[in-house]
Amino acid sequence: MDLLKRKILDDGKVIDGNILKVDSFLNHQIDVKLLLEIGKEFRKRFNDIKITKILTVEASGISVATITAMNFNVPVIFAKKGSSKNQDDETYESEAFSFTKNKSYIMKVSKKYLNETDNVLIIDDFLANGEACLSLINIAGQAGAEISGIGIVIEKAFQDGRKKIEDLGYHVESLARIKSMKDNQIEFI
Amino acid sequence: MDLLKRKILDDGKVIDGNILKVDSFLNHQIDVKLLLEIGKEFRKRFNDIKITKILTVEASGISVATITAMNFNVPVIFAKKGSSKNQDDETYESEAFSFTKNKSYIMKVSKKYLNETDNVLIIDDFLANGEACLSLINIAGQAGAEISGIGIVIEKAFQDGRKKIEDLGYHVESLARIKSMKDNQIEFI
Repeated sequence: MDLLKRKILDDGKVIDGNILKVDSFLNHQIDVKLLLEIGKEFRKRFNDIKITKILTVEASGISVATITAMNFNVPVIFAKKGSSKNQDDETYESEAFSFTKNKSYIMKVSKKYLNETDNVLIIDDFLANGEACLSLINIAGQAGAEISGIGIVIEKAFQDGRKKIEDLGYHVESLARIKSMKDNQIEFI
Repeated sequence: MDLLKRKILDDGKVIDGNILKVDSFLNHQIDVKLLLEIGKEFRKRFNDIKITKILTVEASGISVATITAMNFNVPVIFAKKGSSKNQDDETYESEAFSFTKNKSYIMKVSKKYLNETDNVLIIDDFLANGEACLSLINIAGQAGAEISGIGIVIEKAFQDGRKKIEDLGYHVESLARIKSMKDNQIEFI
């Protein structure tokens, strides 16, 4: 997706050859024009596939997953982190490790909103080591739902997240695949 | 907003006369058709007002704020809770107490994305005691930004959040105002 790659080159910032900051347009401040195009692109890439629900995890996946859900005209569910008083007791739960935050967390989805009749498209803003995505796959599995595909905005293709997911037999579409960030220079596949 | 009120009556659940669960359509699973109408309604209610940025706080405000930002064709910023490695050091910060989670948290916005040239529309899913909203007002104030208005999806009008905000001189629009949840029955204003 050229518009996205252009934006990453123009406004993204690489730190220490490993961290890519896109908080000017994707996960802190959000460029809504770009977001609209991202939603359309996911619709195009997963056309002709049965999808009943979009699944993501809070917080930075929410805006991308919501615009994608609009394009498929299906509900979006975001897995919650931690626990709160107005959360259901009956939840699917899975643990993931965040390298960005350097800690593990539990993500939860209420059993009411995902079951074996669902065809799930998993959406997230980043794919690196695959931790978050594998947890969402785990949760969809607990629900007995079919996983129709996995849509990622930015993939750090030099990490092994895609391999782990493909080894499980799932189809991944990433809108921008970064081959290298060596010397803080971004190179796409 | 009749569609929203209908949805709250049909699918909302009151617990202990105080907690309103709307996680089947607003803050865990999201009904995208309803969300589209919410975005249009905020556009209508804040028409003819200068708005350059939409401001909300993660996580449940993000989808509502994003669709509203699309209707105004301006960027949306979501304040982050806690800290992570790919967060800016230069942030506006404000503390808020969450009655739902029964703890205080710090919300942060990078100084890069909000300044004195901005006209901010604050958007959130709930207004009850006003804690989150007052923190967002505080952050916009630190930036020297103008606050153009405050848009709320569901207001618990039997709590004092609106009063606190109006006492500061700001204009609040809520799409559904709940007068009472006594005996777990929802009554609108």
